[in-house]
Amino acid sequence: MRERDEAGGGLGRGLLPRLLGYHLRRAQVAVFKHFAASVGAEENITPGLFGMLVMIAENPGLSQSRLAEAMEVDRSTIVTAIDQLEARDLAVRGRSPTDRRSYCLALTDNGRRALRRMREAVLRHEEEFAAHLSPSEREELIRLVVKLYAGRDRP
Amino acid sequence: MRERDEAGGGLGRGLLPRLLGYHLRRAQVAVFKHFAASVGAEENITPGLFGMLVMIAENPGLSQSRLAEAMEVDRSTIVTAIDQLEARDLAVRGRSPTDRRSYCLALTDNGRRALRRMREAVLRHEEEFAAHLSPSEREELIRLVVKLYAGRDRP
Repeated sequence: MRERDEAGGGLGRGLLPRLLGYHLRRAQVAVFKHFAASVGAEENITPGLFGMLVMIAENPGLSQSRLAEAMEVDRSTIVTAIDQLEARDLAVRGRSPTDRRSYCLALTDNGRRALRRMREAVLRHEEEFAAHLSPSEREELIRLVVKLYAGRDRP
Repeated sequence: MRERDEAGGGLGRGLLPRLLGYHLRRAQVAVFKHFAASVGAEENITPGLFGMLVMIAENPGLSQSRLAEAMEVDRSTIVTAIDQLEARDLAVRGRSPTDRRSYCLALTDNGRRALRRMREAVLRHEEEFAAHLSPSEREELIRLVVKLYAGRDRP
């Protein structure tokens, strides 16, 4: 399930291997493929939809627009995603009690059960995917990635 | 040009912050946005198209299919991308001398000049984006990311 070590092996890559952005993209592609082949194959879910289910579970009354902001996606992406979660009986939209133009999101009973199974599958995927790193390397990698995108050490 | 430190700040995120995949995606989104606002704004180019121009420059006679493999994208993505590079007079498709069904790619004179400018802009973007990391942290981050996706230390 791991991507080939040398995609396009033997080709010159010029300055690309000096760029963080290049390596982050390759890592992102690899982790997405591993997720698809493990969690995705078992539970028919993408990392993005899984993240949304977690956020809905953790934040009762969460609005669609705050979820979009938290997931760093645009409005049309979130609408499509929530449509999918509703069609699969994993989540529902309700009218916000404070703002009639706004939706607040909740998991269904089925969604709560599915999320429990998915969490286990995601943690197994994470462990397998990071198997080449020691626990301290994994922690250090997370620390450096967070420092890169958030501009500071993890809180 | 840096993303807000706390997108969706104040929301519970459950197990997400324990997942490498979650942080890699956030870093990928942040680096993409920074690229778009710096290199993209100057040169109207995405990280993916820039990577393709570098690969074409570095590998004379490169075929479309090997480029797709090296960039880890599918055939239709590469066809669309090369169409764009041709329309902008940055690259051209020629018939392969050894396989008439295959295209080999080359930069145009305009493409070579544009790539020289883009390389400078990309290196500035990279330096700005990684400004919160010390040079040794940046090296360590690349080492760990490569070890994660390639299963070994950098060659």
